[in-house]
Amino acid sequence: MEQHSIHIQSRGRGTIAINSEIDQLIRKSGIDTGLCHIFIHHTSASLIITENADSDVRRDLENYFSKIVVDGDPAYFHDQEGPDDMSAHIRSILTQTEISIPISAGRLAMGTWQGIYLWEHRTSPHRRSLTVTLHG
Amino acid sequence: MEQHSIHIQSRGRGTIAINSEIDQLIRKSGIDTGLCHIFIHHTSASLIITENADSDVRRDLENYFSKIVVDGDPAYFHDQEGPDDMSAHIRSILTQTEISIPISAGRLAMGTWQGIYLWEHRTSPHRRSLTVTLHG
Amino acid sequence: MEQHSIHIQSRGRGTIAINSEIDQLIRKSGIDTGLCHIFIHHTSASLIITENADSDVRRDLENYFSKIVVDGDPAYFHDQEGPDDMSAHIRSILTQTEISIPISAGRLAMGTWQGIYLWEHRTSPHRRSLTVTLHG
Repeated sequence: MEQHSIHIQSRGRGTIAINSEIDQLIRKSGIDTGLCHIFIHHTSASLIITENADSDVRRDLENYFSKIVVDGDPAYFHDQEGPDDMSAHIRSILTQTEISIPISAGRLAMGTWQGIYLWEHRTSPHRRSLTVTLHG
Repeated sequence: MEQHSIHIQSRGRGTIAINSEIDQLIRKSGIDTGLCHIFIHHTSASLIITENADSDVRRDLENYFSKIVVDGDPAYFHDQEGPDDMSAHIRSILTQTEISIPISAGRLAMGTWQGIYLWEHRTSPHRRSLTVTLHG
Repeated sequence: MEQHSIHIQSRGRGTIAINSEIDQLIRKSGIDTGLCHIFIHHTSASLIITENADSDVRRDLENYFSKIVVDGDPAYFHDQEGPDDMSAHIRSILTQTEISIPISAGRLAMGTWQGIYLWEHRTSPHRRSLTVTLHG
């Protein structure tokens, strides 16, 4: 079992593919069969696995979440950091803070159309910390 | 640590209990105490753990998701495969692509009323691939 | 790999911090680097990781979920246990039944502002069972 810290710089709200960072760690580890666990150390950015072929999927996800989780809803009590503060926490809850993915034949065993994305929910850029734990 | 591929044929949108397939793999493995990880290799079908006693729960879940994730919403840009294309991706994001469950005394250690279900979100039948990783 | 059962008494709908229970198990285990898996054996209570500093975050989450998952919706077929029965199952599906968290330097490796909460979705108090699996 080995653990790595990685850092991803976001440019504000949106998704960032992180497959290549993870695959590189797996290749270096030499693990053939096992599991890869990814944990994000924040409550206003999260992780998703979704379609990687057509970027419209992530555009539609963004639009969908903007509709069901309203920024600056006057009902929010927690709004110190602006209209995207509480909505970012809700988006985080509706998606994932951590994901485990099988490692097979020395690489991430995902479907052809699956990509791993860090989803920044704040509108301003943030440096995000993740811990990747590999075991096999 | 051992890994198995399993395939589940869906009959279109709806839930399929997969506990027995998983329990069989655990029994064969001889693992007494550990974890079972289930990963679905798709972004338009997902995994849930929910009540297994009254099938109305899954009927209500289906109705609820149909209401909050509208098929064929004209706002979607991603619609090549029909009105259930983008909605299937959103339903997948709101549920789980992977689940870990404890193994205790050589079997899945779940609550009496908990069942594991593959949730097909497309309206047409699909053959779905899963990877099950057992470690203990 | 070791496994522990823990029990948490809820006082009805709301969140309960469980970090200290988990951290205590990790300290006793002597595991330095690894993973901690938490599984809740119920389908009407769930787990979340969210902001731990301002309790308004959890108040807003409660309000948000009450709005998007209506108690006593006449559309529900499953209502034997009252207006919070089906809504509790839906809230469980939209959040987490199980969570894995890295262990680093002998403790939970979480962000400064992250807390683990059991979220009781039923309005009446319940005794909730969890299985914690530590490996490293």
